[in-house]
Amino acid sequence: MTQFHDEDTLVKEIARHFLPGRGQGLRLGIGDDAALWKPKPGFASILTSDWFLEGSHFLREKHPPESVGWKCLARAASDIAAMGGTPRCFLLNLALPAAISGKWLEEFLAGLRRAAKSLDCVLAGGDTTRSQRILISVTVIGEIREGQEVRRSGASPGDLVYVSGTLGEAEHGLQLFRKGRGKVSPKNLALRKHLYPEPRVALGRWLAERKLATAMMDVSDGLSSDLPRLCAASGVGALLDPAKLPLPDGADRESARHLALHGGDDYELLFTVAPRNLASLSAKFRKLRLTQVGKLTRELGVRILGIDGKPEPLRVAGWDPFRLRNK
Amino acid sequence: MTQFHDEDTLVKEIARHFLPGRGQGLRLGIGDDAALWKPKPGFASILTSDWFLEGSHFLREKHPPESVGWKCLARAASDIAAMGGTPRCFLLNLALPAAISGKWLEEFLAGLRRAAKSLDCVLAGGDTTRSQRILISVTVIGEIREGQEVRRSGASPGDLVYVSGTLGEAEHGLQLFRKGRGKVSPKNLALRKHLYPEPRVALGRWLAERKLATAMMDVSDGLSSDLPRLCAASGVGALLDPAKLPLPDGADRESARHLALHGGDDYELLFTVAPRNLASLSAKFRKLRLTQVGKLTRELGVRILGIDGKPEPLRVAGWDPFRLRNK
Repeated sequence: MTQFHDEDTLVKEIARHFLPGRGQGLRLGIGDDAALWKPKPGFASILTSDWFLEGSHFLREKHPPESVGWKCLARAASDIAAMGGTPRCFLLNLALPAAISGKWLEEFLAGLRRAAKSLDCVLAGGDTTRSQRILISVTVIGEIREGQEVRRSGASPGDLVYVSGTLGEAEHGLQLFRKGRGKVSPKNLALRKHLYPEPRVALGRWLAERKLATAMMDVSDGLSSDLPRLCAASGVGALLDPAKLPLPDGADRESARHLALHGGDDYELLFTVAPRNLASLSAKFRKLRLTQVGKLTRELGVRILGIDGKPEPLRVAGWDPFRLRNK
Repeated sequence: MTQFHDEDTLVKEIARHFLPGRGQGLRLGIGDDAALWKPKPGFASILTSDWFLEGSHFLREKHPPESVGWKCLARAASDIAAMGGTPRCFLLNLALPAAISGKWLEEFLAGLRRAAKSLDCVLAGGDTTRSQRILISVTVIGEIREGQEVRRSGASPGDLVYVSGTLGEAEHGLQLFRKGRGKVSPKNLALRKHLYPEPRVALGRWLAERKLATAMMDVSDGLSSDLPRLCAASGVGALLDPAKLPLPDGADRESARHLALHGGDDYELLFTVAPRNLASLSAKFRKLRLTQVGKLTRELGVRILGIDGKPEPLRVAGWDPFRLRNK
């Protein structure tokens, strides 16, 4: 494509990548004042919106535009998965500097289209404008059968705490990425997880349909930041066993544990299971590992077993954009 | 309020302004991974998302924070009105520089809350982060009875072109604003329209319910930019009569006409009416003026009657963020 000179041309270029852009409940997509959407009968809509900003969430000169396109949608869709729902369509708000080339946009849209196809989530609309930095805001609309959603607030003392996949892998990938892309194979799993995270939609839906999770959320800021949020919503505490954490490969044991507790951007699911339902869970969902990492307690606060086997308070040290990282 | 030091505190501060934040189809609001929403039976959802960025859409040092809060929601809600729908809930993505004070945020939220109350549109969720400039992205979810939505594409040759209110008034207000706030009464209508535009929800709904409009959109970039979009979607042309344009008060005749054709930010409704339905329209809807400004033609392109009474092509010179303004 060539450079875009006005908003209508840019919108047409975006739409061209995503045509026909219908189906899955979307009645009217790009091209009007707004989109029209209706979920299947008996289903409700799930709504979530996420920032993805140059300088905060990605670096223009470092991150492949395909990764920016993929990740801006994947991480927003992860919030739909965290309710047990299915992503259906999305709105893309995109602000671009004048210096951005058609090539960057082309590659960004290719990554976004791959994510949209992989998630079966169609572009429904959005807004475009100019800005000094690349700014992205993605709204994903999903659906879930009424009453089947899994909230953060449903857990009880005695429930077991589970996570999917491995924790800290994306942060490990970010560390490798910082050391220089040329030195790390693009097939490296941690690097791939940093660049192309996969929201756990199938797992979330399976847990919701079978009512196996009492509470659920995605791990986006890191376990030490996110587990206290689930506990606060449910009015419970938690005790973690560090020996059980599903650690990332390729990091030494001490940093792997740190990554698993505090690393962000994993987009794994954190969920709680009542003891009566344990028999319905196995160690894997399809090829995805499921690991019990602790249990919920009546005593508030999140604690972790120390070297001496005694519980100690877990330091909150995950990602918070309003705070310097405290690691 | 005091300064916010982490994301959870900021989110709580925002939520505090909007509690209880339920009702109107919103089943689950702020505080979980995503919101749950379901319109009334027989209704579909309308989705729209809009940028509102410091430097592009407002100036941090010049615009009152209340106006920023009001306008970011009002302009997005205008897209719902333009389909004939009713705004119900919204997602707020807000990125703030470290230098922003609690006072700015307090006033911003007060303006946003006023708009939300005025529109009966509740806060359902969103995302917050840090950035160098104030960045706002608002997604509004509305509802409309199935099949009642008014698209841009339904107009036919011979339909009459109408606009609500006056055109160019917000742009005139912007000009007054630039000259200095101290010199213009805050009660000045044009200034108020620039700072606190009112989406035409009641009119849009009335036109949709009675099936009086064959096509509709809102005038956000200016008539000379927006009317060609409606015409293109409907596969028709238009002929405007400049003598009929509802001009803003307080500007001389020549600049008033220029403002009415090319001024942006009015958020009035532009709609087309079949001749058989003209009898159902009067010159006012409640207190809002409705003006016939032209008619649709089989010949493509938008033309305007010249001084000699002959049609000439209308220059497109409304707001386009990707183009220098051509006025």
